[in-house]
Amino acid sequence: MFNRRQLLGASAALVSTATWAKSSNMGLPEAAVMETAETEMAEGMTAYLWGYNGQSPGPTIEAVEGDRVRIFVTNKLPEHTTIHWHGMILPSGMDGVGGLSQPHIPVGKTFVYEFDLVKSGTFMYHPHSDEMVQMAMGMMGFFVIHPKDPKFMPVDRDFVFLLNAYDIDPGSYVPRVMEMTDFNMWCWNSRIFPDISPLVVSKNDRVRVRVGNLTMTNHPIHMHGYDFEVTCTDGGWVRPEARWPEVSIDIPVGAMRAYEFDARYEGDWAIHCHKSHHTMNAMGHDIPTFIGVDKSKVAEKIRKLRPEYMPMGTKGMADMGEMEMEIPENTIPMMTGWGPHGPIEMGGMFSVVKVREGISAGDYSDPGWYENPPGTQAWEWTGKLPDAIKAKDAKTQITPKHGNHG
Amino acid sequence: MFNRRQLLGASAALVSTATWAKSSNMGLPEAAVMETAETEMAEGMTAYLWGYNGQSPGPTIEAVEGDRVRIFVTNKLPEHTTIHWHGMILPSGMDGVGGLSQPHIPVGKTFVYEFDLVKSGTFMYHPHSDEMVQMAMGMMGFFVIHPKDPKFMPVDRDFVFLLNAYDIDPGSYVPRVMEMTDFNMWCWNSRIFPDISPLVVSKNDRVRVRVGNLTMTNHPIHMHGYDFEVTCTDGGWVRPEARWPEVSIDIPVGAMRAYEFDARYEGDWAIHCHKSHHTMNAMGHDIPTFIGVDKSKVAEKIRKLRPEYMPMGTKGMADMGEMEMEIPENTIPMMTGWGPHGPIEMGGMFSVVKVREGISAGDYSDPGWYENPPGTQAWEWTGKLPDAIKAKDAKTQITPKHGNHG
Amino acid sequence: MFNRRQLLGASAALVSTATWAKSSNMGLPEAAVMETAETEMAEGMTAYLWGYNGQSPGPTIEAVEGDRVRIFVTNKLPEHTTIHWHGMILPSGMDGVGGLSQPHIPVGKTFVYEFDLVKSGTFMYHPHSDEMVQMAMGMMGFFVIHPKDPKFMPVDRDFVFLLNAYDIDPGSYVPRVMEMTDFNMWCWNSRIFPDISPLVVSKNDRVRVRVGNLTMTNHPIHMHGYDFEVTCTDGGWVRPEARWPEVSIDIPVGAMRAYEFDARYEGDWAIHCHKSHHTMNAMGHDIPTFIGVDKSKVAEKIRKLRPEYMPMGTKGMADMGEMEMEIPENTIPMMTGWGPHGPIEMGGMFSVVKVREGISAGDYSDPGWYENPPGTQAWEWTGKLPDAIKAKDAKTQITPKHGNHG
Repeated sequence: MFNRRQLLGASAALVSTATWAKSSNMGLPEAAVMETAETEMAEGMTAYLWGYNGQSPGPTIEAVEGDRVRIFVTNKLPEHTTIHWHGMILPSGMDGVGGLSQPHIPVGKTFVYEFDLVKSGTFMYHPHSDEMVQMAMGMMGFFVIHPKDPKFMPVDRDFVFLLNAYDIDPGSYVPRVMEMTDFNMWCWNSRIFPDISPLVVSKNDRVRVRVGNLTMTNHPIHMHGYDFEVTCTDGGWVRPEARWPEVSIDIPVGAMRAYEFDARYEGDWAIHCHKSHHTMNAMGHDIPTFIGVDKSKVAEKIRKLRPEYMPMGTKGMADMGEMEMEIPENTIPMMTGWGPHGPIEMGGMFSVVKVREGISAGDYSDPGWYENPPGTQAWEWTGKLPDAIKAKDAKTQITPKHGNHG
Repeated sequence: MFNRRQLLGASAALVSTATWAKSSNMGLPEAAVMETAETEMAEGMTAYLWGYNGQSPGPTIEAVEGDRVRIFVTNKLPEHTTIHWHGMILPSGMDGVGGLSQPHIPVGKTFVYEFDLVKSGTFMYHPHSDEMVQMAMGMMGFFVIHPKDPKFMPVDRDFVFLLNAYDIDPGSYVPRVMEMTDFNMWCWNSRIFPDISPLVVSKNDRVRVRVGNLTMTNHPIHMHGYDFEVTCTDGGWVRPEARWPEVSIDIPVGAMRAYEFDARYEGDWAIHCHKSHHTMNAMGHDIPTFIGVDKSKVAEKIRKLRPEYMPMGTKGMADMGEMEMEIPENTIPMMTGWGPHGPIEMGGMFSVVKVREGISAGDYSDPGWYENPPGTQAWEWTGKLPDAIKAKDAKTQITPKHGNHG
Repeated sequence: MFNRRQLLGASAALVSTATWAKSSNMGLPEAAVMETAETEMAEGMTAYLWGYNGQSPGPTIEAVEGDRVRIFVTNKLPEHTTIHWHGMILPSGMDGVGGLSQPHIPVGKTFVYEFDLVKSGTFMYHPHSDEMVQMAMGMMGFFVIHPKDPKFMPVDRDFVFLLNAYDIDPGSYVPRVMEMTDFNMWCWNSRIFPDISPLVVSKNDRVRVRVGNLTMTNHPIHMHGYDFEVTCTDGGWVRPEARWPEVSIDIPVGAMRAYEFDARYEGDWAIHCHKSHHTMNAMGHDIPTFIGVDKSKVAEKIRKLRPEYMPMGTKGMADMGEMEMEIPENTIPMMTGWGPHGPIEMGGMFSVVKVREGISAGDYSDPGWYENPPGTQAWEWTGKLPDAIKAKDAKTQITPKHGNHG
């Protein structure tokens, strides 16, 4: 499962769960205890969140269509809570809307949810009790129900991650829970680039990526190098004739989209939210722009007092990806990450899909960076063509046609 | 029609409308007079809006495919206006874009729109004249054209509501019309929870819910307990093979989505926008977070001056749903509503779909709260299973499998 | 191509491009040089952007499926850059993610991209190097790959435009690159209404409109007078059975939607983003609302000092579309544009689709305003029906049915 090891559990979980596994081999639902979760978002940046079983997001619960689950929920938060099972077909009294379908679970008490899993798919769980605050604190998780028929829509690799967002001032640890739009931590599974694991895939694997959105805005998840189709929503499987080809899946709030592709193309392929601020780590949105401003004279004066002073931002912000600057305690740079060819200059909702030939079955550990075969990487023009390109030209036997700027 | 009685008409309407009802029994288009509408958003909260026939949204106009309508529009606003018939196929000069398709309707004048209704579906009307301001003041309505063939896509229950948003400072009455994103009143038909009517449905009814969005952002309308499909947009009916299963319908701005379902599951099912701030009433988004802060010492000091002082928000905000606090005049609490099992802690874009067996034909008045059958409601764990669950276990005859936290 | 002439090139381009045009007559990819682009957004409003070949957006590159392209990119920006070919299937090393797929292109250097165009469709190009800043400065363009088979999905008119947004304070010239949501210039191809060209179409033409979104929010592109279907995304062609009828196409960020329609209905049809603030030019979103406020006494006093003083906004804002007010240097009014019937009161993302009978082949220059045939334009009611309507009534031979307000 993608990125399930990212969390520092704050305390032991005292739970007991059971599944009536009518279908054979998969019935392993986990249980939920809500409690404080000290979460490392990335190296050097820790948040104090609320979660389940010591982690935010909570553990991904997996079960099989037809199973019955019994889930014991102990409330270790400082206030009451509930769990709503987003997208699932179940009795009204198990739906988890505090006050409407059940009493809120008081602090310190344990409540039991029990229901049959009547359909397969990808669902979510989160509180429906002081809902805005508890979700802003990180309380959410996935509930994957595998089809009873193992031949239905099988895949080789199956990734799952939740989009979430926090507003944590640099130097502080607790999200500001009243923020509506101006978040500064755009996360997958409460993690940010460069500390989101890559998605490692063997060439020609059938791959499924399940993405749920519990933020306050749509996130268009863009994957490079491929086109693909949504095969499942939190409402069910999408019939093949209804599917659209996409390169960016716009995931609505309170929705899940699973997309699939055949991993035909080797390489290191960026995957990220296409809203450009969401691939940045914490930054102020009120910072003035200095592009085109001549700071040389004022810099001279400042250097008399602070000799290390360097004027920033007059040429753009690419400097930020390369330079080591003093930043506040408990935060990480806005643009960061280092690839095989230099700084990647990203943050937040960004990772890499690594497609490799000859991955030995079962070993999907990080294979390192992709090496581009000769003639397949953008090259500096120094007046002549690389040999691999010349060879290709020779085979083509067509005269190049120059464009209208030629 | 859903929630059509919610409005306090400010003045009488002086209009006259006519339809050439080629098809029999349904041709009842209403007419439009734009004027000031004093609207009760919820008990204790009134807004001064602009609307049609004394109400915002204006009346839902209903007619039948093939009808010709003649609509007299008298402008009682303090400035000029027009009506644009969103989504309808009509002559360019009837399209209502002020300056482009017709002169703006001056204050005090009456203009006539007349056109044939060439297709069935769900359309909207709103000004295209000082458009941003007039829509921010509440000027909008629905125009439903029923299919000429009554056997085309029939339903038993047919709900229709418009998503709208206002920025009204607590204690004031007029929306701030220049706001672009930071609204504090997220409404259905200019109403907010807990004063939005429930959607009452008889078990096994075929139900259609038509939702139009004239705000500034997408709203994912999430309904619990069911999955369903979009069957119609403001562009027309969606062919069955193109439909997706959903549990949250993301409604774009300037668009309508009608979804349908068979009411198979009894219960009280929440329906709401899944952006968590949109199920809150007026609140400041700049309020600091105190979660985890120890206020006990400072509270002691404050109590010497104000003995009733209670430190809020250090444990989350669930207190807000239960407590009576002093709030400004003409506003209602951020989190409110009371269900059969305690505070619901919601506001804004939230309501309940009530599905009941044995509703006598025609009487869709509020049936009260749903009573969960034994063993179907989350229960407090006190060391033993409820009888209804034990009976179920006995029938299952499979040994429970404990999860990996067991 | 729609609106390709809008740019003032700041400097000459030193580039050389070549295509291996395996398929005959279309292979004309252009090349990219990134540099400063002084862009006239509308008459009276110029922005200092960054672009390609002296323009923002860069030139639309056109080629044919099966072609091989070789593109020389010279970096004349003040900082490093790359080009990412959004949506295209190509080798990992040609994907343009700085640091990951290639080294960033240093200032002053030329890099070469070369790849086969394996599928037709509509793609985009933009930097993946200091990405947020460089896109906020205007660096983006379209890459259209025509199908090899000219009989595949042919159209008579083919428009293409990019949605982009800037935050430029009135009186200034350089976008504020750190802004995340509160933009004030909502543009098509870096242009704003009223200086966006109309889309001129001959009656019964098959028309395609390709729209790409590289802003920070969804834009629902609403076209009046028609319904239509999305036929292509940046992921590929949408199978006919999967298409939905729409009147507003919600374009996600980092995505392209091409929609098509048969131009059956003559007229002047508005086309615009349906978020009402996006059809306004620069405005402050913090301006207070004065609707309903009586300013007459305070106005009297102010007139003693400034006799020309006129109280604004107490009746709405329609005044703004008609009046000439002093505005800061280098900006244009919030609401503007003049049509055949008065002020259009729009700005930003707005234009007009002009459908005319009898356009002589090839001459798609602006035909002026549409003249509505008798009886097809909303008319002022003065007590009697226009003759054209009377004639229609006579033919109908049905008694009008009065609505419930009659």
